Amino acid sequence: MQEEKQRNIEVCFTPALFPYFKNTDAVVVIVDILRATSSICAALENGARSIIPVATIDEAKEYKSNGYMVAAERDGYVLDFADFGNSPFNFTPERVAGRDIVYSTTNGTYAIHLARDYYQILVGSFLNISVVKDWILRENRDVIILCAGWKYKFNLEDTLFAGALSKMLMESHGFGTVCDSTFASIDLWDSAKNNLMSYISKVAQHNRLKSKGLDDCIEYCHTFDQTSVLPMFKNGFLIDATKASAKEAIL
Amino acid sequence: MQEEKQRNIEVCFTPALFPYFKNTDAVVVIVDILRATSSICAALENGARSIIPVATIDEAKEYKSNGYMVAAERDGYVLDFADFGNSPFNFTPERVAGRDIVYSTTNGTYAIHLARDYYQILVGSFLNISVVKDWILRENRDVIILCAGWKYKFNLEDTLFAGALSKMLMESHGFGTVCDSTFASIDLWDSAKNNLMSYISKVAQHNRLKSKGLDDCIEYCHTFDQTSVLPMFKNGFLIDATKASAKEAIL
Repeated sequence: MQEEKQRNIEVCFTPALFPYFKNTDAVVVIVDILRATSSICAALENGARSIIPVATIDEAKEYKSNGYMVAAERDGYVLDFADFGNSPFNFTPERVAGRDIVYSTTNGTYAIHLARDYYQILVGSFLNISVVKDWILRENRDVIILCAGWKYKFNLEDTLFAGALSKMLMESHGFGTVCDSTFASIDLWDSAKNNLMSYISKVAQHNRLKSKGLDDCIEYCHTFDQTSVLPMFKNGFLIDATKASAKEAIL
Repeated sequence: MQEEKQRNIEVCFTPALFPYFKNTDAVVVIVDILRATSSICAALENGARSIIPVATIDEAKEYKSNGYMVAAERDGYVLDFADFGNSPFNFTPERVAGRDIVYSTTNGTYAIHLARDYYQILVGSFLNISVVKDWILRENRDVIILCAGWKYKFNLEDTLFAGALSKMLMESHGFGTVCDSTFASIDLWDSAKNNLMSYISKVAQHNRLKSKGLDDCIEYCHTFDQTSVLPMFKNGFLIDATKASAKEAIL
């Protein structure tokens, strides 16, 4: 019987460090818990056909002028040309079902851009964490969890997700790590998990959202398994990889 | 009575992230626990007049040809032209007392180079952690703890030191933080502190040193307060800022 190779889990704390993670054969899971990747999961759960991530306001405007529905805000304010803002609660079935939705996210789009030459790009959040885990187990490849961070710096909420997912993978057959960032993420998750909302209250991004009255979604964004969708990036679109039609579209 | 401004502690996990820490009025504490900053503390404790950090082998050779004593290794082997390797145990009083010692450290020298325009550059390790804390309290400025990391990536041992120092400062009057990296460092330190050697055994650099038989100094490098020296960078030299003569030299 051939011995199975142990798969390596790495955690990249910010896009600024991603150039030092060179394993292009890995599955990359992009994480921006507050709020991009949580919102993308919510949008697909509520029936959006795809999400089109864009980095700049000009790109978002261009799509809007071509008839797309656009979610875009800056500094907590919905931009005047946009249809709604970036909270997961904005992506209601009435608004998004059956449509391609443009989502303006500087950090998220940059992270996707960086990972474009890697084997596969998935979008992870607490809302779909078990689906992400099961998909990775089936892929049976090395994994890099790429935290979107905050303006190229480390943030806690993305790291906690990285720790939770790493721990779930480590407890499954065939995954391990030799990466200090992964160990740190798991230890931080273990510190936080039994009192998550209290822990999150010290997080800088929590306080930024709170100061702008945008903190209503924070508890939701830290809730496990609210959806069975798995956003995957392919040809400029984020589509649900678990749906047969989406699979056909990307294969 | 004028209200005292709270001083901010920030932790920078790797030199690759330092460009995003823009507060040049801050004191910068450079950390490379395994082994550069521990060895620099040991060398000054044992009577070295100064340490000259150099980044490249060519620079180290040049100093050697000018009569300096040189500590230099690559991949765990002492370089043929060098006097000894980079372990703190090599810097014995017999070898270093009264001399200027050249120390080859790629990560450490790069970190110093990055911080050259900041208010002050100190060298921290567990060996002199209380001296560093007391000095910072007297300076009463913001602090950035700059971890040398490993090949631009995050490492655990430097982060644990950052957490220990941050916690000591936070428990003193006048220091706080709004930095997620600082919170994470403190939480990791709290996870590790009661069983430090067991915790450190999972650290990647521990295992690198162990595989090369260079792990004899790891426990020492994680021991608090073995010296009262405070290496400070000034004009290309690291000197003990606590000594009157050193102070005169730098003022």
